[in-house]
Amino acid sequence: MPTLSVFMDVPAAHKPEGSLLKTYKQDDSPNKMFLAYKVCMTDDGHPWVSLVVRKIRLQIAQDPSLNYEYLPMMGMKSFIQASLELLFGKHNQAIVENRVGGVHTVGDSGAFQLGAQFLRTWHRNAKIVCIISSQRELHGLVFQDLGFTVYEYFIWDPTQLCIDSNMFLNVVEQVPRGCILVIGNIIDCKLTQSQLAKLMSTIKSKQIFPFFDIPCQGFFTGDLEEDAGILQYFVSGGFEFFCSQSLTKNFGIYDEGVGILVVVALDNQHLLCVLSQLTQNARAMWLNPPSMGARIITSILCNSALQGEWKQSLKGMVENIMLIKEKVKERLRLLGTPGSWDHITEQTGSHGYLGLNYQQVEYIIKKKHIYIPKNSRINFTCINASNIDYITQSINEAVLYARDSETASENK
Amino acid sequence: MPTLSVFMDVPAAHKPEGSLLKTYKQDDSPNKMFLAYKVCMTDDGHPWVSLVVRKIRLQIAQDPSLNYEYLPMMGMKSFIQASLELLFGKHNQAIVENRVGGVHTVGDSGAFQLGAQFLRTWHRNAKIVCIISSQRELHGLVFQDLGFTVYEYFIWDPTQLCIDSNMFLNVVEQVPRGCILVIGNIIDCKLTQSQLAKLMSTIKSKQIFPFFDIPCQGFFTGDLEEDAGILQYFVSGGFEFFCSQSLTKNFGIYDEGVGILVVVALDNQHLLCVLSQLTQNARAMWLNPPSMGARIITSILCNSALQGEWKQSLKGMVENIMLIKEKVKERLRLLGTPGSWDHITEQTGSHGYLGLNYQQVEYIIKKKHIYIPKNSRINFTCINASNIDYITQSINEAVLYARDSETASENK
Repeated sequence: MPTLSVFMDVPAAHKPEGSLLKTYKQDDSPNKMFLAYKVCMTDDGHPWVSLVVRKIRLQIAQDPSLNYEYLPMMGMKSFIQASLELLFGKHNQAIVENRVGGVHTVGDSGAFQLGAQFLRTWHRNAKIVCIISSQRELHGLVFQDLGFTVYEYFIWDPTQLCIDSNMFLNVVEQVPRGCILVIGNIIDCKLTQSQLAKLMSTIKSKQIFPFFDIPCQGFFTGDLEEDAGILQYFVSGGFEFFCSQSLTKNFGIYDEGVGILVVVALDNQHLLCVLSQLTQNARAMWLNPPSMGARIITSILCNSALQGEWKQSLKGMVENIMLIKEKVKERLRLLGTPGSWDHITEQTGSHGYLGLNYQQVEYIIKKKHIYIPKNSRINFTCINASNIDYITQSINEAVLYARDSETASENK
Repeated sequence: MPTLSVFMDVPAAHKPEGSLLKTYKQDDSPNKMFLAYKVCMTDDGHPWVSLVVRKIRLQIAQDPSLNYEYLPMMGMKSFIQASLELLFGKHNQAIVENRVGGVHTVGDSGAFQLGAQFLRTWHRNAKIVCIISSQRELHGLVFQDLGFTVYEYFIWDPTQLCIDSNMFLNVVEQVPRGCILVIGNIIDCKLTQSQLAKLMSTIKSKQIFPFFDIPCQGFFTGDLEEDAGILQYFVSGGFEFFCSQSLTKNFGIYDEGVGILVVVALDNQHLLCVLSQLTQNARAMWLNPPSMGARIITSILCNSALQGEWKQSLKGMVENIMLIKEKVKERLRLLGTPGSWDHITEQTGSHGYLGLNYQQVEYIIKKKHIYIPKNSRINFTCINASNIDYITQSINEAVLYARDSETASENK
């Protein structure tokens, strides 16, 4: 009798992500291109790395004084300190009062995992997680796997082609009392002071626990402070909250997954208790976080000349993103593509909605071999001098084709 | 009314580990020393790093062709392949048949976490985990946190001062049918062929799922094959199993936490299903594992000259460990310390039992300021030319003191 496998009932896992990339790879067309990479690309089509990072990698390898011992379970202290100061500013009230801290994690997934585990154990009444973002976020799955009920709200309005701050406020009005509210990138929401006050009072009165997501500080407006500005308001408002801070993309250290789960508490005593519980959970997941990425970032942030170089490189990247968007818009204008394309330049950051419908997206993928997500949210840094003509002409064709086929069906 | 903290019910976490180190650090004695570090130390009291690792760190930093993109969720493929070949041998039956694979993890905690999560979901009848090892293992807590009932068995016999292979076999006879059996370092068990056959037939007939722990291959006997020898038997015996493979200590890359959860299945189809499920779980924990450690190790393992250098450095380390143990034994003999101290040299690896009782350990800590664990399992590489006299004289004193106080109490 043949032995039965212990694993006989284990099915292959369903892969929700990556199928677009897979189809792209299998495409034989010489024109094919992929506009959905996660990372920022340079003009010559390589992942962007802040130049100062390359220099520091070499310095670290050449430093004979470094030891390579295990980091503490909580992570590299100097790294945590420097990153918190980047996020809140050195003289922030919560930092001065010793009531903000963090645990060094493996990327932002690690930060959400740690935070979600903690909330499941210590914030038991909160069984619902509401995620507000401009796109579908992977951490929804993290909360789901831990037994939370997850609702996702996208603040991009595909008919008005804009990110609507009223839509955002309405969502916060609707979410259940006492839930956990994950607030993703809402820079483009451009909340007025009174909207912000309304937001904070709703969150306070409904006893909602805020969990911010700062995935790439500095990559949206080019200004580090502005990109994390919302946190300042919540600190001043006396809120307790979590924040996932990822430093992977804004330094270009994609291979090391450097993150922090940031905790803001009412006082130092509560903070220390929370951090000690989080550290216990981190022990079970990876014991000691990896150091390479944290070491690079700390070297840069703790040296004002290097920090200046890094900030400059961030600014350069953001300017480049704006330039690409302007060019795309200009080409579409010159091609006479129907519709307004202002929404392209109104969105900040490397990724943004083209504002195409499903039929247009389908056309671009099938006929033009340009692989973009169904919601048409592309990585603009994948566009460069050598492909911009083909891409904008294809968008133009897709829009005209969709219009023609609509007219045709109307005339039937 | 002052605001109540969301975290008001969160207590500080209990820290089971690290209190010995803490007491050591607080001790003001100029003679104090700590013999319980996790990592191997060099003669001059620094964490051991294979020399070839330093060289490769520099090479990597200087290589302009490297990109630093995200690794796949499963991890670095070349790293996994090279590590599996190290563990099983290139021409191993299971490797040739494509039924062994692995997921790149953040250290061995990550490997146990992934494996435990998988078993909870897909091997539901196994609610009990039995851990057999020569010491208390941290991964007991990982299983416990996930809801398993955990029993730990230590194979060190403190009265006979030896690791008893019969004790080991008796434990396997006793553990419940269908449990998960974590088999730690049992190199010193020296199982005979017939004992091994008995072990395997018991595990098979009781439908026990084996989960091996290979924490530092090559660091016990100095021979890589011999240290992982037990896996070969289980592959040949047609078993399916998991194995946590850590490559942190045997390369001296403590700061990067490099591990693999190894899966051996009956055939490739089952293997792929299991790997795909594990990868899903890895996504929720850290999304992409960090690359630095894996990059270093792969560079070394995939180049036969560098691999040779590394193996040589491992051998040198193991010879050094044996030499230290011989010297300790010889000093105790010269001092006329009562008792046999052969058990010191009979144990392989950096860590081993001194074979002292609680009273003797207490004496050494309190009177001599030498910090060792209660079970007297020390890191022998913490002993070097500059402290060996003080340490051996202290052991001698402790043994004589304990004997005298015993005689005194007998004469009362």
